[in-house]
Amino acid sequence: MAHIDLGLDEKEFPGITGPMHYRPETAAPLNELAEVLLRAPHSLPPGERELIAAYVSGRNECTFCCSSHSAFAAVQLDGGMTLVDQVRADLETAPVPAKLRALLRIAGAVQISGREVTTDMIAAARAEGATEVEIHDTVLIAAAFCMFNRYVDGLGTFAPEDRDAYTPMAHQIVEFGYRRSGDVRPVG
Amino acid sequence: MAHIDLGLDEKEFPGITGPMHYRPETAAPLNELAEVLLRAPHSLPPGERELIAAYVSGRNECTFCCSSHSAFAAVQLDGGMTLVDQVRADLETAPVPAKLRALLRIAGAVQISGREVTTDMIAAARAEGATEVEIHDTVLIAAAFCMFNRYVDGLGTFAPEDRDAYTPMAHQIVEFGYRRSGDVRPVG
Repeated sequence: MAHIDLGLDEKEFPGITGPMHYRPETAAPLNELAEVLLRAPHSLPPGERELIAAYVSGRNECTFCCSSHSAFAAVQLDGGMTLVDQVRADLETAPVPAKLRALLRIAGAVQISGREVTTDMIAAARAEGATEVEIHDTVLIAAAFCMFNRYVDGLGTFAPEDRDAYTPMAHQIVEFGYRRSGDVRPVG
Repeated sequence: MAHIDLGLDEKEFPGITGPMHYRPETAAPLNELAEVLLRAPHSLPPGERELIAAYVSGRNECTFCCSSHSAFAAVQLDGGMTLVDQVRADLETAPVPAKLRALLRIAGAVQISGREVTTDMIAAARAEGATEVEIHDTVLIAAAFCMFNRYVDGLGTFAPEDRDAYTPMAHQIVEFGYRRSGDVRPVG
């Protein structure tokens, strides 16, 4: 049960969807941030940006965010959930392009602390073709999920254990985006 | 020097102001979130909410965010910078109201991980009179500064060392708020 009374059925509104219904004033900028970072037109495809979100959420051991963004990445990446699981299990051996691996290393550093990011990591990403905006957005996606993960778990929200529960939500996010995500939740 | 080319004079746009000028699409929801969390009408005064931000930023060792939000708290709290320093040095002995101390303990847990927040911490805050919204917003303020701190330091931005450099910015934030904070920066 969540730490505070959200005034709703947590099974129906798991994870971040509960607090977002509870406090729409903060949900609006949070959803807008997710939309710009993960879905707006960009040189990094949405699936790769969702993978960064899933990777950071896994390192923060946030079940809801990791399961949901893994599902969102899987439906938008050629490698599907197999690739997501490979990246989460061992980034260094996972079959991802060199640029994406370099960006994920930066994201992994940010997950620990912003001060863990080194000029060498940045140079390595640039050497693989990463642009300034791609580096900027990787840092901010990783930082943002250090917020979302703490928000979801700091309030003790409910997370479905079954990974399949997140798949309908993935299709809804791909179709309608985060600005409507108050209405997007696991079905069944 | 920042890790990426922000295309501006970092002395003039230190800390988060540089990346916000560089990427206005993400700056908009970030500033809106700060405005709602730290300045919108609320049962917790802005000075107390800024104190939560400064406390978390200090624990994350983020010089720019800690110095700026310490200044923003100091100009809005009766105890001024002396009280901010006392809270940052030792929360348990600092002369703050019991409810605020209980909320700051929750914020300190969130800084480590959302999963560090316990039902006992929540019950203790409630016993001192904290409302559900106050607990919700404390968790989200703490989580948000785990993002802002990583954003600022993950991009290697410049932070003035002199605490006095942050005072003009504090008066600008109090007068104009975060929605205009692209124009708000240390002067001189």
